[in-house]
Amino acid sequence: MKALIFDLDGTLVDTVYAHVLAFQLAFAESGIPIEAWRIHRHIGMSGDLLTQAVTRDSGLKASPQKLEAIEKCHGKLLHKLLPKPQPLPGAVQLLKDLRRKGILHGIATSGKPAEMKLALQDLHLSKDIVVINRKDAPLAKPEPDLFLECQKRLGVPPQECYAVGDAIWDLLAARRAGMLSLAVLTGGYSKDELIAAGAYRVFDNAEDLLGHLGELGLTPKQNARTS
Amino acid sequence: MKALIFDLDGTLVDTVYAHVLAFQLAFAESGIPIEAWRIHRHIGMSGDLLTQAVTRDSGLKASPQKLEAIEKCHGKLLHKLLPKPQPLPGAVQLLKDLRRKGILHGIATSGKPAEMKLALQDLHLSKDIVVINRKDAPLAKPEPDLFLECQKRLGVPPQECYAVGDAIWDLLAARRAGMLSLAVLTGGYSKDELIAAGAYRVFDNAEDLLGHLGELGLTPKQNARTS
Repeated sequence: MKALIFDLDGTLVDTVYAHVLAFQLAFAESGIPIEAWRIHRHIGMSGDLLTQAVTRDSGLKASPQKLEAIEKCHGKLLHKLLPKPQPLPGAVQLLKDLRRKGILHGIATSGKPAEMKLALQDLHLSKDIVVINRKDAPLAKPEPDLFLECQKRLGVPPQECYAVGDAIWDLLAARRAGMLSLAVLTGGYSKDELIAAGAYRVFDNAEDLLGHLGELGLTPKQNARTS
Repeated sequence: MKALIFDLDGTLVDTVYAHVLAFQLAFAESGIPIEAWRIHRHIGMSGDLLTQAVTRDSGLKASPQKLEAIEKCHGKLLHKLLPKPQPLPGAVQLLKDLRRKGILHGIATSGKPAEMKLALQDLHLSKDIVVINRKDAPLAKPEPDLFLECQKRLGVPPQECYAVGDAIWDLLAARRAGMLSLAVLTGGYSKDELIAAGAYRVFDNAEDLLGHLGELGLTPKQNARTS
């Protein structure tokens, strides 16, 4: 295995619960009551897919214009609720360790550029890291496009990449992309749900993953066999 | 079966995600970084047990005084994040239906009186409903004391009561109390976690439970056999 492709929200930064509340409040401001747990179970999709999906799941209806307004309102509320997203335990150290070891890695998020910028700021990334966001691919997770775009830019075939994520949408997208996936509990899904969605391994958080990095058969770039 | 004893937060009102964020921000203000998912998995315990448990789980330490200050700070932040807790779908209707049918029911929450008052306000409860809170029993969930106190006041033996809750702490407390439990997904636990903790049945939310009320063998008070 030659590369790790990370999801961002809930995997590297602790933003899932603030996203849930921001979406719920944004829906409420538009007069649409949505249960928080239903929003939680859709985080990891892009905002446009999420607003459609939770409205449908709740048996309610809203115009595309209204859903777009809700998504924008969510962005503002998120920034108020969580002005400074915090890296999850081990995230900074894990990325540092991968750089030190020369193991290829990138980030592929369903988030939009503005949200993403805020979430990335305290991860101490190298300047040349590959970061793919909602604008870089036609379809967001659970479609495989974001992971595949990242894999292409890393120059590693899908079957030699692990996708790392906290949401079932990451794991489903990984399977569609022909990648094995590593799941973390930091998004608030249960271990059972992650395994049911196809996780190859489940770790508590990035710190726990780092502690088991030696079990994943990852080869540094300079020593990689030509494929 | 003669009675239903309801948990409040996450079961009748949609407050779990705001509680999670309020606790996380309160910990952060004290300089203690705690992952949101670890807090989520402890909601349903009383605030004092929760602050102890998540600090220990995160491998961190804090004095009892600091934990008490965090709990107080959480109360203030919760009110800011969610000034008006919303009933979950079907909650008001379910309680109304139980009253109409003469089926005994009460509420048993790990919450403190002030938080509880706010959460109860839009549930349209009858004035004489039995409501047990953290102050009414020596130990909160997962100890059985709150459910047992409620059952005593309702005058129904434990084995003829269902406990209804969203958190594994409710279900574990129900087993200790000798009660069957009905679980709801509205607290953000997965179905697997709830079944593993001993749930007798799992419903999406109060509305779904109401739709299956006829399957639970509940007998109205006036027709109850003497036990």
